[in-house]
Amino acid sequence: MLYMTRMDVTFPPHLSAEDIAVFQAREKEYSGNLQREGRIQGIWRIVGEYANHALFDVETNDELHEVLSGFPMYPYMKVKVTPLAKHPNSIR
Amino acid sequence: MLYMTRMDVTFPPHLSAEDIAVFQAREKEYSGNLQREGRIQGIWRIVGEYANHALFDVETNDELHEVLSGFPMYPYMKVKVTPLAKHPNSIR
Amino acid sequence: MLYMTRMDVTFPPHLSAEDIAVFQAREKEYSGNLQREGRIQGIWRIVGEYANHALFDVETNDELHEVLSGFPMYPYMKVKVTPLAKHPNSIR
Amino acid sequence: MLYMTRMDVTFPPHLSAEDIAVFQAREKEYSGNLQREGRIQGIWRIVGEYANHALFDVETNDELHEVLSGFPMYPYMKVKVTPLAKHPNSIR
Amino acid sequence: MLYMTRMDVTFPPHLSAEDIAVFQAREKEYSGNLQREGRIQGIWRIVGEYANHALFDVETNDELHEVLSGFPMYPYMKVKVTPLAKHPNSIR
Amino acid sequence: MLYMTRMDVTFPPHLSAEDIAVFQAREKEYSGNLQREGRIQGIWRIVGEYANHALFDVETNDELHEVLSGFPMYPYMKVKVTPLAKHPNSIR
Amino acid sequence: MLYMTRMDVTFPPHLSAEDIAVFQAREKEYSGNLQREGRIQGIWRIVGEYANHALFDVETNDELHEVLSGFPMYPYMKVKVTPLAKHPNSIR
Amino acid sequence: MLYMTRMDVTFPPHLSAEDIAVFQAREKEYSGNLQREGRIQGIWRIVGEYANHALFDVETNDELHEVLSGFPMYPYMKVKVTPLAKHPNSIR
Amino acid sequence: MLYMTRMDVTFPPHLSAEDIAVFQAREKEYSGNLQREGRIQGIWRIVGEYANHALFDVETNDELHEVLSGFPMYPYMKVKVTPLAKHPNSIR
Amino acid sequence: MLYMTRMDVTFPPHLSAEDIAVFQAREKEYSGNLQREGRIQGIWRIVGEYANHALFDVETNDELHEVLSGFPMYPYMKVKVTPLAKHPNSIR
Repeated sequence: MLYMTRMDVTFPPHLSAEDIAVFQAREKEYSGNLQREGRIQGIWRIVGEYANHALFDVETNDELHEVLSGFPMYPYMKVKVTPLAKHPNSIR
Repeated sequence: MLYMTRMDVTFPPHLSAEDIAVFQAREKEYSGNLQREGRIQGIWRIVGEYANHALFDVETNDELHEVLSGFPMYPYMKVKVTPLAKHPNSIR
Repeated sequence: MLYMTRMDVTFPPHLSAEDIAVFQAREKEYSGNLQREGRIQGIWRIVGEYANHALFDVETNDELHEVLSGFPMYPYMKVKVTPLAKHPNSIR
Repeated sequence: MLYMTRMDVTFPPHLSAEDIAVFQAREKEYSGNLQREGRIQGIWRIVGEYANHALFDVETNDELHEVLSGFPMYPYMKVKVTPLAKHPNSIR
Repeated sequence: MLYMTRMDVTFPPHLSAEDIAVFQAREKEYSGNLQREGRIQGIWRIVGEYANHALFDVETNDELHEVLSGFPMYPYMKVKVTPLAKHPNSIR
Repeated sequence: MLYMTRMDVTFPPHLSAEDIAVFQAREKEYSGNLQREGRIQGIWRIVGEYANHALFDVETNDELHEVLSGFPMYPYMKVKVTPLAKHPNSIR
Repeated sequence: MLYMTRMDVTFPPHLSAEDIAVFQAREKEYSGNLQREGRIQGIWRIVGEYANHALFDVETNDELHEVLSGFPMYPYMKVKVTPLAKHPNSIR
Repeated sequence: MLYMTRMDVTFPPHLSAEDIAVFQAREKEYSGNLQREGRIQGIWRIVGEYANHALFDVETNDELHEVLSGFPMYPYMKVKVTPLAKHPNSIR
Repeated sequence: MLYMTRMDVTFPPHLSAEDIAVFQAREKEYSGNLQREGRIQGIWRIVGEYANHALFDVETNDELHEVLSGFPMYPYMKVKVTPLAKHPNSIR
Repeated sequence: MLYMTRMDVTFPPHLSAEDIAVFQAREKEYSGNLQREGRIQGIWRIVGEYANHALFDVETNDELHEVLSGFPMYPYMKVKVTPLAKHPNSIR
């Protein structure tokens, strides 16, 4: 079951560059695992913004919330979720 | 080069059901061709709305505009374009 | 799997009172069936607006889109869908 | 008398993880009591957000304000209240 | 139980000046009755707009919806309802 | 001359509970005086928000600004002012 | 007593060029009279828009509403009114 | 050449009352000079807000930016600029 | 003196394809002349929209309004004007 | 390939005037280099705001993101990117 998300990240000013680097390393690992499992089908940087679009493939709304809230940077993210259905013109 | 789009369709009230059916058939063919050529990488219905998200892969901004403005329903669409870059956490 | 929706209805000015009454009768039947099947868990009028909140319980995003787009008044509705997950404080 | 609410929680950056855990424990108890009394008919997590939808059943606007402002996290919440009426198509 | 409302009126272009005059006469009577019954505590024109603020005093959300949807111009109104509670600083 | 206002209060995070209590006591006195003078005709809590609607009756725009900017909590308020005129359907 | 307004004009599509010319002539006369009476202190075109800013000087909110609703094009205007007070830095 | 501006001031929480008083005194002088030079034709407080509307008369866009960015409080202002042209109904 | 504009075009539904073609031909000539005169320094299509960004170089606000309101499609345009000043980092 | 951008800069309150001056010097050098390379075709200050419009000419979306995220002040910028195509009326 597919969902399009947009995630915008805003770090609080008190975080040091080291803190942020740690978050980014953990995020890369977490995101990579989700991609290898097929739960993230694609993730793209939005040009000029600290934000991404990602396409999730999960079984349930609950699973999606669990996956999203497990992102290391989740406390600093604003997430917008758009549920997707099959498009009648899609050839897949 | 990738772009995420959101297209919302609103038909003017004077269009008949037959007119709309003709538009939809032409749209399906046009969209199918773009998918077969790889210029649309994915197209998804937004649940509950006469709208879609689509992922385009084209060479230039000009090509994207040409492709979008060629949709049979283009005069009735509101299109929002988001340019995408490679995400550092993407494994592809 | 639960979703909260908000549906706002706007009839085009050319619809007669009779047309609207027909739509409303068909809508009542369609909505009643969904409630009896348990796919709508609750539907409430928003005070002062031709709009409602409804709580849907369906298996998939695709099923939700099929159910929503089957409403007789769907062409005149603006629908906003919010996917829901279990709340950690819910006692149910 | 029914009301739909949406509550969004934002903690100020100076709160420690312990402070937040205390708030969450008190919140769980407070929310559980309201559910057992029937004053909250349902509460759901909004997927991907630190937010919920809840359905309240209380006697008056004043009672609703008293209940909402009693939430332990109320100072950190943004609450939107939508008064509900019986929907003509509801079978309940 | 008090509610503040804002009502904005937009007539469709096909209504004649006579139609509008009839609506306005019926509206005046309907509104006057609600004021005499005490269900409208005050109604004020918003300067420069075809809109008003009104203060309603009714028993329930359902009664408020019934009263609002009974306005002759209701099909041409956009209504925003704000539930009110006693203010701790009010001396009444 | 009447004006509807909406005031939203946001305290900065560094204010202590004691500071806030002092503000609230001064606010209660200030607001009470305005009500006894008839310059505030009514003040109501907006359910679920640290906000109010108030109906002011003053002689001039300048007097209204002086009264509003004299509120002890004014530096922490966002105020929206709507000038009101007599409504043709008002029976008062 | 001063108010800043912004008026945006939108003519319905069925109005002919002649109708519009008649409206514009009546508007010019009405606006000119208000300026000669000093009730409009200044009126300026907003560059690139069929809109203006005007500065009104009237005795009361009621007078302002009467003046605004008397504009020949009032039914086609969207008006936003901002009440003004003396600025402490104004040298006038 | 005329421009309407709206300036909203927000002081950061760390500024002391003394700091603010110094800013206000410098602002009064700066604003007074611009008025005496005729570069500000009028400045008005927006009722209930720490904001003003001002009417500027300068030679160029560059001059306007220089004047605006020279305000002592400029770092704490949000400024909106609307270029004005002669209105065909203006009698001046 | 430079201004950035964004123009969005919406044709009313009653215009025929021929009417639109006539407008487009007149628009092309008008726009071309402005470019040859240097009053338009650049004009670009916004991808996926019937809209453009253009950079104007004119002497005054009044001249800009005259030029904009002279576009054949002006009655069907929504125009947003942003006055520009020299940027301190510009090397031109 | 062209893109119009709007960049708004907001410095966090803890930055000193010296810190800001360092950022501005580095920004000037970075921006100057991009202009000399032709990757920025023009950059303009938005009057009254700490913001600019810039016109970029780059090969790909990825290059644009790399260039934008390399700005020394990027962490303090909000950037909006609009992809541009050739306008049919452009004479260039």
